[in-house]
Amino acid sequence: MPRIDGRKSNELRPVTFYKDYIKYPEGSVLIEMGDTKVICNATVEERVPPFKKDSGEGWVTAEYDMLPRATHDRNGRDINRLKQNKRSVEISRLIGRALRSVVDNKALGERTITIDCDVIQADGGTRTASITGAFVALALACNHLKKKGLIKKIPLKSFVAATSVGIVGSEGLLDLCYSEDSKAQVDMNVVMTNNEYIEIQGTGEEAPFNRNQLNELLELAEKGIQELIEKQKEVLGDIANEI
Amino acid sequence: MPRIDGRKSNELRPVTFYKDYIKYPEGSVLIEMGDTKVICNATVEERVPPFKKDSGEGWVTAEYDMLPRATHDRNGRDINRLKQNKRSVEISRLIGRALRSVVDNKALGERTITIDCDVIQADGGTRTASITGAFVALALACNHLKKKGLIKKIPLKSFVAATSVGIVGSEGLLDLCYSEDSKAQVDMNVVMTNNEYIEIQGTGEEAPFNRNQLNELLELAEKGIQELIEKQKEVLGDIANEI
Amino acid sequence: MPRIDGRKSNELRPVTFYKDYIKYPEGSVLIEMGDTKVICNATVEERVPPFKKDSGEGWVTAEYDMLPRATHDRNGRDINRLKQNKRSVEISRLIGRALRSVVDNKALGERTITIDCDVIQADGGTRTASITGAFVALALACNHLKKKGLIKKIPLKSFVAATSVGIVGSEGLLDLCYSEDSKAQVDMNVVMTNNEYIEIQGTGEEAPFNRNQLNELLELAEKGIQELIEKQKEVLGDIANEI
Amino acid sequence: MPRIDGRKSNELRPVTFYKDYIKYPEGSVLIEMGDTKVICNATVEERVPPFKKDSGEGWVTAEYDMLPRATHDRNGRDINRLKQNKRSVEISRLIGRALRSVVDNKALGERTITIDCDVIQADGGTRTASITGAFVALALACNHLKKKGLIKKIPLKSFVAATSVGIVGSEGLLDLCYSEDSKAQVDMNVVMTNNEYIEIQGTGEEAPFNRNQLNELLELAEKGIQELIEKQKEVLGDIANEI
Amino acid sequence: MPRIDGRKSNELRPVTFYKDYIKYPEGSVLIEMGDTKVICNATVEERVPPFKKDSGEGWVTAEYDMLPRATHDRNGRDINRLKQNKRSVEISRLIGRALRSVVDNKALGERTITIDCDVIQADGGTRTASITGAFVALALACNHLKKKGLIKKIPLKSFVAATSVGIVGSEGLLDLCYSEDSKAQVDMNVVMTNNEYIEIQGTGEEAPFNRNQLNELLELAEKGIQELIEKQKEVLGDIANEI
Amino acid sequence: MPRIDGRKSNELRPVTFYKDYIKYPEGSVLIEMGDTKVICNATVEERVPPFKKDSGEGWVTAEYDMLPRATHDRNGRDINRLKQNKRSVEISRLIGRALRSVVDNKALGERTITIDCDVIQADGGTRTASITGAFVALALACNHLKKKGLIKKIPLKSFVAATSVGIVGSEGLLDLCYSEDSKAQVDMNVVMTNNEYIEIQGTGEEAPFNRNQLNELLELAEKGIQELIEKQKEVLGDIANEI
Repeated sequence: MPRIDGRKSNELRPVTFYKDYIKYPEGSVLIEMGDTKVICNATVEERVPPFKKDSGEGWVTAEYDMLPRATHDRNGRDINRLKQNKRSVEISRLIGRALRSVVDNKALGERTITIDCDVIQADGGTRTASITGAFVALALACNHLKKKGLIKKIPLKSFVAATSVGIVGSEGLLDLCYSEDSKAQVDMNVVMTNNEYIEIQGTGEEAPFNRNQLNELLELAEKGIQELIEKQKEVLGDIANEI
Repeated sequence: MPRIDGRKSNELRPVTFYKDYIKYPEGSVLIEMGDTKVICNATVEERVPPFKKDSGEGWVTAEYDMLPRATHDRNGRDINRLKQNKRSVEISRLIGRALRSVVDNKALGERTITIDCDVIQADGGTRTASITGAFVALALACNHLKKKGLIKKIPLKSFVAATSVGIVGSEGLLDLCYSEDSKAQVDMNVVMTNNEYIEIQGTGEEAPFNRNQLNELLELAEKGIQELIEKQKEVLGDIANEI
Repeated sequence: MPRIDGRKSNELRPVTFYKDYIKYPEGSVLIEMGDTKVICNATVEERVPPFKKDSGEGWVTAEYDMLPRATHDRNGRDINRLKQNKRSVEISRLIGRALRSVVDNKALGERTITIDCDVIQADGGTRTASITGAFVALALACNHLKKKGLIKKIPLKSFVAATSVGIVGSEGLLDLCYSEDSKAQVDMNVVMTNNEYIEIQGTGEEAPFNRNQLNELLELAEKGIQELIEKQKEVLGDIANEI
Repeated sequence: MPRIDGRKSNELRPVTFYKDYIKYPEGSVLIEMGDTKVICNATVEERVPPFKKDSGEGWVTAEYDMLPRATHDRNGRDINRLKQNKRSVEISRLIGRALRSVVDNKALGERTITIDCDVIQADGGTRTASITGAFVALALACNHLKKKGLIKKIPLKSFVAATSVGIVGSEGLLDLCYSEDSKAQVDMNVVMTNNEYIEIQGTGEEAPFNRNQLNELLELAEKGIQELIEKQKEVLGDIANEI
Repeated sequence: MPRIDGRKSNELRPVTFYKDYIKYPEGSVLIEMGDTKVICNATVEERVPPFKKDSGEGWVTAEYDMLPRATHDRNGRDINRLKQNKRSVEISRLIGRALRSVVDNKALGERTITIDCDVIQADGGTRTASITGAFVALALACNHLKKKGLIKKIPLKSFVAATSVGIVGSEGLLDLCYSEDSKAQVDMNVVMTNNEYIEIQGTGEEAPFNRNQLNELLELAEKGIQELIEKQKEVLGDIANEI
Repeated sequence: MPRIDGRKSNELRPVTFYKDYIKYPEGSVLIEMGDTKVICNATVEERVPPFKKDSGEGWVTAEYDMLPRATHDRNGRDINRLKQNKRSVEISRLIGRALRSVVDNKALGERTITIDCDVIQADGGTRTASITGAFVALALACNHLKKKGLIKKIPLKSFVAATSVGIVGSEGLLDLCYSEDSKAQVDMNVVMTNNEYIEIQGTGEEAPFNRNQLNELLELAEKGIQELIEKQKEVLGDIANEI
């Protein structure tokens, strides 16, 4: 069965990074994965949360949100309900964990980098696009610190990217757009370095899945993530060589 | 004294409208006034607030917010403090009042149009850029309703645009950027149709001002707003003829 | 057309100040403008907000609220909705800006004066009555500091009062009561020293307005404010001579 | 030991009721007990809470709050902390229970009366003054309903008043002012009809108390409450005869 | 009239204390009074609230809550409404006051003990069971401090227990279960040491009550509390001798 | 390396289910996995969320929370911060998804079952113990509906249980207790039916992991989950045959 946008089952959507998209952040990128668009801004602050005080170590955290009309219907702002969207809470935690797994906190030094991922247009895969974009923003912010002489080397142990994979009909697909995602029996988000797993979140939304299906999806994800990391290297240029 | 960006005292910053910027809203525009960038999305919903129920009349409202890193320093999100930023409350109310003053609620019919103005980069004049952009998004949404046959005519009685003016040193300046705004003795936001006032908010932040100064600032504003309305007409094309 | 209470178009409602109305605040006054009644209490605290720390300068701020039954229908308390009323936010900010424009922060010294304006009965013009009353409470609190030897002079650069003006029918009116305000085409709040503007907020609620109308309203406001400042001088007695 | 204001141990402070204090509520009174001043406003609304829907019965409830500067030091507003003051919660519930115990809900009919008790100046005994004043506001609101023909009789089964009593030093005192209250070993609030108890809340703040002390305090309270009910009868005039 | 569970009018329900119920708290007990079950956990923290800073004195406080399904119908969690249940606020304050009345703050030293009373199953009398259980948890926590050498003696001046009494039909009953409580004309919660009152809260929910009824209820309560204190002594063993 | 409690690497902690633990819920169980103890209460309500209205289908949801002293240090209650704990949000969503994957919503009919999982003592694996216990509470509630004749069959398509697995040192371990969990390089939560995956969440907290490690962990999890499902069958008795 052909995909809605004519892609092959193991093909990513076109991905573009707009570097230095916003002028104030220490690292900023707009990532577009097909029609999914996320502004990723990295802010460096010379303080750490209480549990890192006097540890000599830094901290990386992330916040994920959507503009009210990033989706087909308008979603009211969290502040009007006085409650953070539960899905946003879950995704913010995921992005933070993914980035922290490759940060050398000692080399970062006692400062915090916060990555704000704000989805301005959503068409599936916003959490994985956020991770892929956030890594670039984080690397740019690290480079900013290095150029200012505040750190000696880019404190990142490896590249990190993420993609979604899923079983739609009986077929495994890479990088689901929204209309595919809403029909998937199994939906999996995979965060990887070039060849190892950082986080796997697989859910049998409509039906449980078995080991074979899991393995098929992991293969697809690995291919996609390696391509995404190539794109990250392109946009980061020389900085990429230090990671 | 020359202005920081070389403009004349009565000269606007370059202004650009990116029409249909986000694909889901009924009306969408990205407005750039110099380095100030605001996404203005208009959402149509087929319901009205309680006080308009069964009135046969519509309602237009607005919400204003900033991304955390739209400014030099990062501002935490409202939801993390559980309080809406007081400045955002004031500006949201201003944008809503400004737009409502030219809407023909009867012709709009019993539906609500909400304009979300999200500042992605701020360099002074975000509230006036929001009004100027929101009007375009509103007109686009009205056109969407008309094309769908839900309304007979564009229910807008006139164009609306806004600009800031101020006294810096002893000189009146049009369209202040952030560094000018932060030095202004008097700061005024003016919302106008082509030749009449909709809202005037003038504040002697550093010192009181007199009638002559007021009149000088109103002249400057009028010139700027007429230019902005020309730009709005350009971007709206044929729709402009119906307003 | 005669006004509902028989006043001339350029006539204020009867105004009374009850000095030292509440016994605990450093400055306290009940202001009655016709049937509008506001308790204005000034509190001195020997600390400043973070952005004034170690500046040697003081800070003046204001909070505006209404009792639930200050109006015809009962308004629930903010705490039951967990949201501050948006109108109260806007007015609190206006009162604070108005007072700060005449305070000599250096002469006040590193302390905060908070003016609580609590409307116990509302009949139009609550925000302008609050400013007019708040100035008296502020002056009383300054005098309290001076009598205790904590400051050398009253740190107020000029008097401040405020009034509302509006166009009802085609006539400009001074000091609108509620029933006039709800019929006004144009509504303007003016804050002035004896002869200069501190803040002008004019809104064409029903229709835009032109420069002639603006000028007519400013004349009316100026007359009213000069009368209000005379009343403030009376109630402040000797303190008035030091401002 | 003489009392701070020269009263006898079994003597109330001077009490005054200002009837129809605010013009909008269906029942309104300012009660002054010495320096304690509480505005009590009764609002009638033609709806009931869900648990009374279609019961044919009414509901009476109360809300208690203080102006920020009703006390020696300024208390921030609840809305700024997003939390209702715990003491206010407790007192609001007490006032509501006290009034409901004498309301004939059937005779009131399916409507709600809310009594807002807002303390504008506090000098001890604010909760008992609130109950005593709230009863008068409630009776006035009932009379308003009767005059409008909405109910046939005043739906109140008896008078209700309240006072505080306490042991200071080793002496039982009636109607404690703040400075007495803060030194009391035992503090008791008593709510009564003319001769029976509605609520007793006694606390051995500094030390436990025995049955003799309890009885002494109940005698004092009974005397005070009978005097307060006389005052309520005076202010209510003819209405009093129907209760 | 026989009681629903066959008890005599002056008979407590069976009471059991499960000591050291949870393994982490400094003091922990599960109290069962009939079908009412409350986990009481005492936490010691080496800090005090601001008003006790540098006083050399400690502070004891309590928090009361219920699991959502501790009752016949499910009660949503407070956090989903963003408001603390008003009944829980009132009860938390009562438990804290009751415990503090017997604590020697000087002997406790500058630390805080927080008693969490979480009702896992409710069948009437949860507030009094909480007090009775909280006292045991508090004593265990004090003993923990003493064994660690942080305090010299158990800083408790006497035992504290609580029970509810009420008039159902025309009969005074001790320790009401839920079905009795919901029919009671008069409902009273009594907190006592072995022979003196700490807090009395009596409410004529359905009808006012007189001195004779009050005295009958106080007798019943005294008998019940003395039995509860015997049980507390049993479970505390040697620790009881030091109180 | 021997485990802290002497278990083999592929050995579960002792698990016990206390059926009908609380008397009010339609399904109730206390699950103990070693020292981790969770009360799981299932509530049936005859209404559905808006998005299921008139669908003929039911809905299953879950809420997860901890008592303040379920852990070594006391965690303040969410309501005191006015924010739901982010970890609790994530876990509540996981439990709900896990249960819904095996519910036949049509057979359940238009009603909601809410499973409250309240951890009273935590020693690692609270989210997986919650899922394992919640399934039993859910089955008991379904049986309650069937016995009342409201549904024809138990609307559960298969058993569901969950366990945690992880790599500690270089060894794969089943069912981590807290001290093991805090040292794990890789931590994975697995939710399964008897032989298929419902959800896999694996995180390389300290280091990324490869496919071999993933497979080893999945083997361990499968063994543990099959044992847990045997235990669930035992406690459910005859009900188990209908699933």
